[in-house]
Amino acid sequence: MNDIIINEVGPRDGLQSQPTVLSPQQRGGLIQALFAAGLTNIEIGSFVSPIAVPQMAATDALAQALQVPMGAEVSALIPNMKGYELARQSGVDVVAVVVSVTETMNEKNIRMSLSQVMEVAEDIITRGSREGAQVQAYLAVAFECPFEGLVDPDRVVDLAARLMAAGARELVVADTIGAANPKQVRSLMERLVDNHGAPRLACHFHDTRALGLANVYAALEAGVRRFDAAVGGLGGCPFAPGTKGNVATEDVVMLCEQLGYRTGVDIDRLLTVVEMVAQLLDSELGGRAFGWLKQRAA
Amino acid sequence: MNDIIINEVGPRDGLQSQPTVLSPQQRGGLIQALFAAGLTNIEIGSFVSPIAVPQMAATDALAQALQVPMGAEVSALIPNMKGYELARQSGVDVVAVVVSVTETMNEKNIRMSLSQVMEVAEDIITRGSREGAQVQAYLAVAFECPFEGLVDPDRVVDLAARLMAAGARELVVADTIGAANPKQVRSLMERLVDNHGAPRLACHFHDTRALGLANVYAALEAGVRRFDAAVGGLGGCPFAPGTKGNVATEDVVMLCEQLGYRTGVDIDRLLTVVEMVAQLLDSELGGRAFGWLKQRAA
Repeated sequence: MNDIIINEVGPRDGLQSQPTVLSPQQRGGLIQALFAAGLTNIEIGSFVSPIAVPQMAATDALAQALQVPMGAEVSALIPNMKGYELARQSGVDVVAVVVSVTETMNEKNIRMSLSQVMEVAEDIITRGSREGAQVQAYLAVAFECPFEGLVDPDRVVDLAARLMAAGARELVVADTIGAANPKQVRSLMERLVDNHGAPRLACHFHDTRALGLANVYAALEAGVRRFDAAVGGLGGCPFAPGTKGNVATEDVVMLCEQLGYRTGVDIDRLLTVVEMVAQLLDSELGGRAFGWLKQRAA
Repeated sequence: MNDIIINEVGPRDGLQSQPTVLSPQQRGGLIQALFAAGLTNIEIGSFVSPIAVPQMAATDALAQALQVPMGAEVSALIPNMKGYELARQSGVDVVAVVVSVTETMNEKNIRMSLSQVMEVAEDIITRGSREGAQVQAYLAVAFECPFEGLVDPDRVVDLAARLMAAGARELVVADTIGAANPKQVRSLMERLVDNHGAPRLACHFHDTRALGLANVYAALEAGVRRFDAAVGGLGGCPFAPGTKGNVATEDVVMLCEQLGYRTGVDIDRLLTVVEMVAQLLDSELGGRAFGWLKQRAA
């Protein structure tokens, strides 16, 4: 119960919204550096149209060229069954599907209704279970939707139950626009932990309002032990107005370390990866605790 | 239980460590602007030697020139009985005394032993009770000392009991170097709330490791409803290596607002005060949520 799994989503959720498009080789180099810093779970990209999202082009070639350390796991985001097939052909056996919990978000994001999106997700989960793939089911805008406002937690609990029943390996509760507060997080995650057990749950926070770490702490208090995070706080949802980066991996590692949890991540090596990405993107990066961590490392 | 009292310490704990020394008039203008933004509790300065701390010179003249809104309260830091007398002569009826909980911190900070410092504090509290003054008793480095490391919570609980027994109006538990984590905060504050009740307790956090808001949340969960904070995240302890600013008032107000608590502070007006202080000090200021709050205000 003292081990925390950090799922590094910088190479996907982080890079997908960047104006600078990295080559598959650069993205691969970043992923190898993240493995070297001790991260064991990395979302390496997505299998989406390279015309729609050039930042994620050639994830198949990238995947096939990776050196994955023993015991580590790579995953990729897939939008549909075609993405599932492309991921499997590239050797990626852990796939992430996303269901936004509000009608408007699904409509604006991918021009589908919630029930259509649920059907796609359940089909992928069912097929994945049959074929030995593992599916991470994301519930996006699980606390607040930029179009519909506050989300009824009952809705999240119901959708979660359906995705779990279909056979999702884990459910990832995502505060896509960084609008959740720690009370909401604790309350919702306690309900989900009661229903499904902590090992099948994860949280995905954005740090828009500087509440990322408070929300991680609240989820830890609710029993959650798996967290998405992005190196340097990369990211943001390109389809949701007013978003900022993901909660930074270095911040989450620091918080977990301070609280006595183990992440297996070497924070000083991680800081050099932050600097590497900042240089590649020619962008200021670094989580809330980056300055302090750099000072401590010096 | 939904009302939060924010004790604005920027004009004292914030300004005392700044290389730029503001005039008493400038400090007074800042305090009036903070009142106008809805803050009701402000630490306006300290009664210390102007040679040792020129940033706090002429706090007596500053105090006497203030226009204090009905229902608002000003306080000042005092190092000893002489400071107590100066504060009272200036019409300041709420005074703050500081006891560091470790021997080394007291020695390095003010060249006194812990028992000497406790004696001074208890004398001031006793005299204050007799004379109608109210004393806020600070326990500094209450979680970790830069010289002695982790602090035994039992020590804090014992010192708190003595200061409360002497008649302190409230006890302020201070993470002077910003090293506390939310688990420690919750655990210690729950013990103190059990012993003394929430109305007589407050927390003072620094945001060195970006855990300020997580710590405020943890203290709220323990029942605490009074918090120190500094406009723009001003501050730092000049005697403790590795410190950074106080948790920012705008961050605490934002967190409380998100959680459904009332602070009475007008956050947009507060943001203009942050900009005013930044200009006065020619310094970059602003809490972790400042960017988002500015965007929201626009």
